[in-house]
Amino acid sequence: MNGRLRELSREESLRRLASVGVGRIVFTHQALPAIRPVHHLVEDDGEVVIRSHDRTALLSALDTVVAYEADSVSGDDRIGWSVIVTGVARRADGADRYRHLADPWADGEPGYVIRIRPELVAGFGLPEDNGHAP
Amino acid sequence: MNGRLRELSREESLRRLASVGVGRIVFTHQALPAIRPVHHLVEDDGEVVIRSHDRTALLSALDTVVAYEADSVSGDDRIGWSVIVTGVARRADGADRYRHLADPWADGEPGYVIRIRPELVAGFGLPEDNGHAP
Repeated sequence: MNGRLRELSREESLRRLASVGVGRIVFTHQALPAIRPVHHLVEDDGEVVIRSHDRTALLSALDTVVAYEADSVSGDDRIGWSVIVTGVARRADGADRYRHLADPWADGEPGYVIRIRPELVAGFGLPEDNGHAP
Repeated sequence: MNGRLRELSREESLRRLASVGVGRIVFTHQALPAIRPVHHLVEDDGEVVIRSHDRTALLSALDTVVAYEADSVSGDDRIGWSVIVTGVARRADGADRYRHLADPWADGEPGYVIRIRPELVAGFGLPEDNGHAP
């Protein structure tokens, strides 16, 4: 970290998270750090909802504290901002409700819907990045 | 996971990782899952080298098993491929040697150079994704 870095408010962080559709869930699988890219949406109350078909890996994330990260990287590999939400992952009903939430690896099967309640929200960005798509 | 997903060989996975400049290191910090976006390069022997100034967070990753992930996401939020390397993170000398390896948050300070030896390499991609930039 250094002086150039600007901390984003919780509200601004969740706004940026909601402005993109892909992030990465971070959890522990077989005692090792694990990460999977997934699609997400952000509910009005700030809950992060993801859907996945990766049952082997993601089932081990349920009912544990996970991190969820999304960022904005420009074509020249410049990281404009990064938002990290930390909270407990819960399986939720509602696969049908979130059917439009595509699983990147899937063919329209319902899959698992996981909700992450954002207990901690951290966001950082370069001052010149206004949060709009590059 | 489903039938559409193609597993990438270790060689192909490392080639794709080397084709991009940004990824995310996943580690444990204060008993919670943590993730930070950083810049990387891949050495000829497959070692992943990252540089960072985030001493508080990243020092807790040293000498532990970490995951490192990079992926390709198109403008319409389609995930083309994802590569995940798992291995022990070691601090390395050579900040000068890797000075060109930009820290996204930094102003040219030397920072920490961390090496990850790829004990496990996993890569997955959609069959129609050929690994070229979107």
